[in-house]
Amino acid sequence: MTVETVRSLAALVGGNVVGDPGLEIDGVGDIRFAGPRQLGFLRSERLVAMAETSSAGAVLVPSRLELPMTQIVVADPSTAFARIAARFHPRPTATEHAVHPTAVVAADARLEPPVRIGPHVTVGAGARIGAGTILEPGVHIGAQVRIGRDCLLHPRVVVYDGATIGNRVIVHAGTVLGADGFGYARGDDEWIKVPQIGNVVIEDDVELGANVTIDRGTIGTTRVGRGTKIDNLVHLGHNCEIGARCAIAGLSAFSGSTAVGNDVVIGGHTVVAGHLKVAAGVRIGGNSVLLSDVTEPGDYMGYPLQKRMRWGRTLWVLRHLVDMRGLLRHLDRIDRRNEAERTARGMPATERKSE
Amino acid sequence: MTVETVRSLAALVGGNVVGDPGLEIDGVGDIRFAGPRQLGFLRSERLVAMAETSSAGAVLVPSRLELPMTQIVVADPSTAFARIAARFHPRPTATEHAVHPTAVVAADARLEPPVRIGPHVTVGAGARIGAGTILEPGVHIGAQVRIGRDCLLHPRVVVYDGATIGNRVIVHAGTVLGADGFGYARGDDEWIKVPQIGNVVIEDDVELGANVTIDRGTIGTTRVGRGTKIDNLVHLGHNCEIGARCAIAGLSAFSGSTAVGNDVVIGGHTVVAGHLKVAAGVRIGGNSVLLSDVTEPGDYMGYPLQKRMRWGRTLWVLRHLVDMRGLLRHLDRIDRRNEAERTARGMPATERKSE
Amino acid sequence: MTVETVRSLAALVGGNVVGDPGLEIDGVGDIRFAGPRQLGFLRSERLVAMAETSSAGAVLVPSRLELPMTQIVVADPSTAFARIAARFHPRPTATEHAVHPTAVVAADARLEPPVRIGPHVTVGAGARIGAGTILEPGVHIGAQVRIGRDCLLHPRVVVYDGATIGNRVIVHAGTVLGADGFGYARGDDEWIKVPQIGNVVIEDDVELGANVTIDRGTIGTTRVGRGTKIDNLVHLGHNCEIGARCAIAGLSAFSGSTAVGNDVVIGGHTVVAGHLKVAAGVRIGGNSVLLSDVTEPGDYMGYPLQKRMRWGRTLWVLRHLVDMRGLLRHLDRIDRRNEAERTARGMPATERKSE
Repeated sequence: MTVETVRSLAALVGGNVVGDPGLEIDGVGDIRFAGPRQLGFLRSERLVAMAETSSAGAVLVPSRLELPMTQIVVADPSTAFARIAARFHPRPTATEHAVHPTAVVAADARLEPPVRIGPHVTVGAGARIGAGTILEPGVHIGAQVRIGRDCLLHPRVVVYDGATIGNRVIVHAGTVLGADGFGYARGDDEWIKVPQIGNVVIEDDVELGANVTIDRGTIGTTRVGRGTKIDNLVHLGHNCEIGARCAIAGLSAFSGSTAVGNDVVIGGHTVVAGHLKVAAGVRIGGNSVLLSDVTEPGDYMGYPLQKRMRWGRTLWVLRHLVDMRGLLRHLDRIDRRNEAERTARGMPATERKSE
Repeated sequence: MTVETVRSLAALVGGNVVGDPGLEIDGVGDIRFAGPRQLGFLRSERLVAMAETSSAGAVLVPSRLELPMTQIVVADPSTAFARIAARFHPRPTATEHAVHPTAVVAADARLEPPVRIGPHVTVGAGARIGAGTILEPGVHIGAQVRIGRDCLLHPRVVVYDGATIGNRVIVHAGTVLGADGFGYARGDDEWIKVPQIGNVVIEDDVELGANVTIDRGTIGTTRVGRGTKIDNLVHLGHNCEIGARCAIAGLSAFSGSTAVGNDVVIGGHTVVAGHLKVAAGVRIGGNSVLLSDVTEPGDYMGYPLQKRMRWGRTLWVLRHLVDMRGLLRHLDRIDRRNEAERTARGMPATERKSE
Repeated sequence: MTVETVRSLAALVGGNVVGDPGLEIDGVGDIRFAGPRQLGFLRSERLVAMAETSSAGAVLVPSRLELPMTQIVVADPSTAFARIAARFHPRPTATEHAVHPTAVVAADARLEPPVRIGPHVTVGAGARIGAGTILEPGVHIGAQVRIGRDCLLHPRVVVYDGATIGNRVIVHAGTVLGADGFGYARGDDEWIKVPQIGNVVIEDDVELGANVTIDRGTIGTTRVGRGTKIDNLVHLGHNCEIGARCAIAGLSAFSGSTAVGNDVVIGGHTVVAGHLKVAAGVRIGGNSVLLSDVTEPGDYMGYPLQKRMRWGRTLWVLRHLVDMRGLLRHLDRIDRRNEAERTARGMPATERKSE
């Protein structure tokens, strides 16, 4: 068990201690339920009531508050909490070389000790696995795959032949990397499969959720950039290029050959049509549909995609669309009456154009 | 093979027999194709023609009909059919203790006999599996997991460390319980992973479809309440709390910390934004998007979410939206003409406000 | 390594050679990066610049162009490229009979040699596997399953008991065939599971993507027709019947008992409500929602579903919906002013009807 003083934790996050810097902390917790040797956090001063009755030994706060326990004051308690939580719960890595006897590892696969390979894992011909990496039970590594150091592949992950995974990558259970893209040419009376002979590259520090699917390139590469995080059940089609430090929430789907810049954030259940470009720094709200390039940074949302504020107003109008039609029908009746009266007065009426 | 008399089946569902109560039945089937020792059903009297030419030995009906075969009259033939079908096709449970020699079970895991553990299963340290439970081939049970009695985990299900599963739970193939939630704090030039140290609790009588993902809590618990049924490819984010007896159809996604009450029904491809509350008894149609709490019971649908009837009318208007715009442009032309005429007559025109 | 002359490749696709028919080709590639023994293609004359600086030995073109390398002129270079790529990268089949010692194959399963069965595969009682078929690591084949010849099941595919798979079927990793459909009857205080006792039939030449889920029929069959291609993370509910030569893109969902005709193309993230019929030859754009039958061939898209061109115009109007409401409010103000003036003049005003 890791034990740290409040003083050392405050130093880790650049915070100031109010209270006992020598207090020992052995874990983190929800401020409402944390115990006397645990540290919690308050995202904002307005939540101070949550801490007033807490038994937590210490709390991260955005400014000094009236509280019974030791405080660490930092500009961003959420980020500081993440850093401190990671101190108590570091990403596991292999520290002893261990290949389970039920694993089937090709004779010419190269394992850089120490790696930990769990039960029922398969490692294909010519694969290379870096030191510190853990392959949990049932992982399948295809032929010629390269995996870097200190990676963690959770149970039942499948990596097809030829894929490349960087260092410190985490892949959750059931995720499939490098399956064939959805590529067919239409023959007279059949779909002709276009052989999918490209590969997949997952760069350093990426994390992929559970049951994600990332297809290999048709020819060329499907790439997920350094430090990007992808949530459960997301689909990347062949030849997608996702930039660095993106965050993509669950059940989003990217058709083939989409190019997403760095630092893009995409809400869940969002769909990006094929061959589009999304500029660096763009933020897309959930449930959006992209049918054309997004070239300017900014916050967008909706279908059709609009600036986020504008989409909010569009939703408001949609909520009142039935009433809007009622009003329009009223105005139409007035118009017909008026035009009839004009005609009766011998004045010219205005013709209705069919749209 | 189970054999029952019509008499005993009628007693099981509280029905009245018209015809031969001593007739032996050994299975259920589609009324159109069922044989003379099988029982079918008619959801409504209007479907009577489907049974007239049937060879079925017996049929569940909502009222006595003119039919050549034995009838069991019950208020709700669908529910009665489900009960009778379950008599012939009971949920399988382990009746003999059997651990396949290729399974890898931690020395300190506790298996309460009888359990059936299939090939290539892994059971982690300190896990506990209740009597009657079946783990099909390739299931992975993490450390300290607790699974109750008479559960059925289909092939390749992955249960991360520390999860708790109740009694009589069914989990279909490829489903992942307890993967890390999608939680990151933004650092200067990176996403900092928030360690996901909570757990997952699946209560009694839950059924989960195939390739579902339910993330563990960040801190605290992600919970699926007693008797809730979840369809394929659904995603529950960290710290979601789903009530009892809910039904959630396929490809729906719940962002983190959503709280859903008891007896909620949710159609497929529905998305619920984070930190929302959905009241008990609410029914949400498919393809809906929830961006705010739903506090009143009722039927809702759409994006934006509306009362279901209202959404139906909104869809109707959307179908005619192009025409609506054409009419509006016509009225605009009339208005410009009229205002110009007013101005020519020396009367005040009304200013257009920019929105 | 396969080596072909330009002459033989041109013959394969019915093309005319401009340049050296005796040139040897040993692979295909992206025209921009292909080498002197590789063949690339140009989809259209407009892309000619991509080939001008290419080192490719030969190129498929839609008409004779000014290019430095050997050309094969064909009507449809994309389809020709698919055919030629398949020559160099044929679908793998088992050519030697090999059952990995870690596989667990039921004593009464019938394997028609040669089949290749990888590590940690399970094959259930009474299953039959045709010659040429490959089961990759960790595949699970249930009892009584029938699989035809020359199939390729990628790692961790799960086939439940009783399913039938035709010849030359490809199934990508993590896909689940034959899980129970989402069928429950509502009891007083519980959902009563309707036993799912039907089966799944996958016909010849189907390809299924990764992490797809296709449920078994409740009673009867869920069927995917010959030559149909399905992308990643698609869900087919119980008793769906998908015709021949369809193409269904990622994250689409079909509720139970949907009947789709032959040659239907469906874009990604599309949802089809239950018990609907979609006519042969229909093409549905992505992100669509089908709530009623589609009886006429044609191109459709949207929610509500419309003819594709019409939906494009609806999207255009939606993009301007906020402005449209602004204009409507202006016209409403004018109307109220005018009606007040009419009333002041002693003329009858027109009553507003509440919708």
